[in-house]
Amino acid sequence: MARGPLIVFEGAEGVGKSTQLRRVASWLESGGRVVHALREPGGTPLGDEIRRLLLDPASDITPRAEALLFVASRAQLVETLVRPALAAGHVVLLDRFFLSTYAYQGAGRGLPEAEVRQANAVATGGLVPDITLLMTLPVREGLARAERRGARDRMERNADEFHHRVSAAFAAFAAPAWQAAHPECGPIVTVDASGPEAEVFARITNVISARLGLS
Amino acid sequence: MARGPLIVFEGAEGVGKSTQLRRVASWLESGGRVVHALREPGGTPLGDEIRRLLLDPASDITPRAEALLFVASRAQLVETLVRPALAAGHVVLLDRFFLSTYAYQGAGRGLPEAEVRQANAVATGGLVPDITLLMTLPVREGLARAERRGARDRMERNADEFHHRVSAAFAAFAAPAWQAAHPECGPIVTVDASGPEAEVFARITNVISARLGLS
Repeated sequence: MARGPLIVFEGAEGVGKSTQLRRVASWLESGGRVVHALREPGGTPLGDEIRRLLLDPASDITPRAEALLFVASRAQLVETLVRPALAAGHVVLLDRFFLSTYAYQGAGRGLPEAEVRQANAVATGGLVPDITLLMTLPVREGLARAERRGARDRMERNADEFHHRVSAAFAAFAAPAWQAAHPECGPIVTVDASGPEAEVFARITNVISARLGLS
Repeated sequence: MARGPLIVFEGAEGVGKSTQLRRVASWLESGGRVVHALREPGGTPLGDEIRRLLLDPASDITPRAEALLFVASRAQLVETLVRPALAAGHVVLLDRFFLSTYAYQGAGRGLPEAEVRQANAVATGGLVPDITLLMTLPVREGLARAERRGARDRMERNADEFHHRVSAAFAAFAAPAWQAAHPECGPIVTVDASGPEAEVFARITNVISARLGLS
């Protein structure tokens, strides 16, 4: 049996990753596929404990420890759920993966890119997504959407300057030169996340059909 | 002010690291030094949460996630306590550091050495101990001592085979060739941990005096 595809949803806060991921899961399921919709950090009992530590506004966590906690959760998710599901021929949809570490812990916290790459490599043992859907919005629109969601966790509470660095990083990932220099992230396709939800969904299913032959 | 020295105590379970570390702390304090005695995993609020996850026999943790959790705790300890203490000219005594990751997650769990090195590098940002005291005992004697201590946590509950791989790894670290290939670990001095506690202590203080000029 062929290995199933790993499809990653990425982008800054408020671009609509989780909403679109759920729609894509339903769409693929109604096409008869077995789909695992997973999110980072979390998705396993250990990952959920790590998520609680990472998002608790009372936690005092240094940038390096934060990066290592994110990738520890990733390692557990990849080894216990993602790899077995892919091996069984299932589809895996991931809400955040490598690019979020580059954006939040690299650009946002200022960790050297080489360290981010190393931490990711240890976490995943060489797993590469089949496609990453990089959802983009003008920075101001994304922050406004995220703000309307209310309660803010430890990551969301960072200064505006942090969120601007993160958004700028996600924008930079759309450049072919960035992608060519980061083969560990696999193919990245930019998706315009502005406009009505149904239109964004149509853009995403077009990409998935064209690139992976799924429908 | 000169940077204070970082002294690491290493070795398999039951070699007497914690006991000797406490004695060395008292000895240095009575010599008028400010001493920070720290242990891994733990030593910070975040590290203690991570320690709880790692040692809880109910935790299901893959080898990669385990390595990354250990080094996340290390990153927090190094950034918030070790570096500031050293910068203030204080002495830092550490119960376990790099060598334990090589022994437990490398040799014990079978993670590739390159990944262990990468994870350590991300955690510490290049900090190198001034000396590592590698306490050694014949494998059987160490395991017998550890067994007499009773209650066993998640790490101690591993199969005998795991503990033999760990002990063999610690023995291998005593070889000059291993040390020459691992400059990131700094200088390592082997200390015979057999015999009465006071004799082992005398061996350790001799090494510390001779190599670091402390007394």
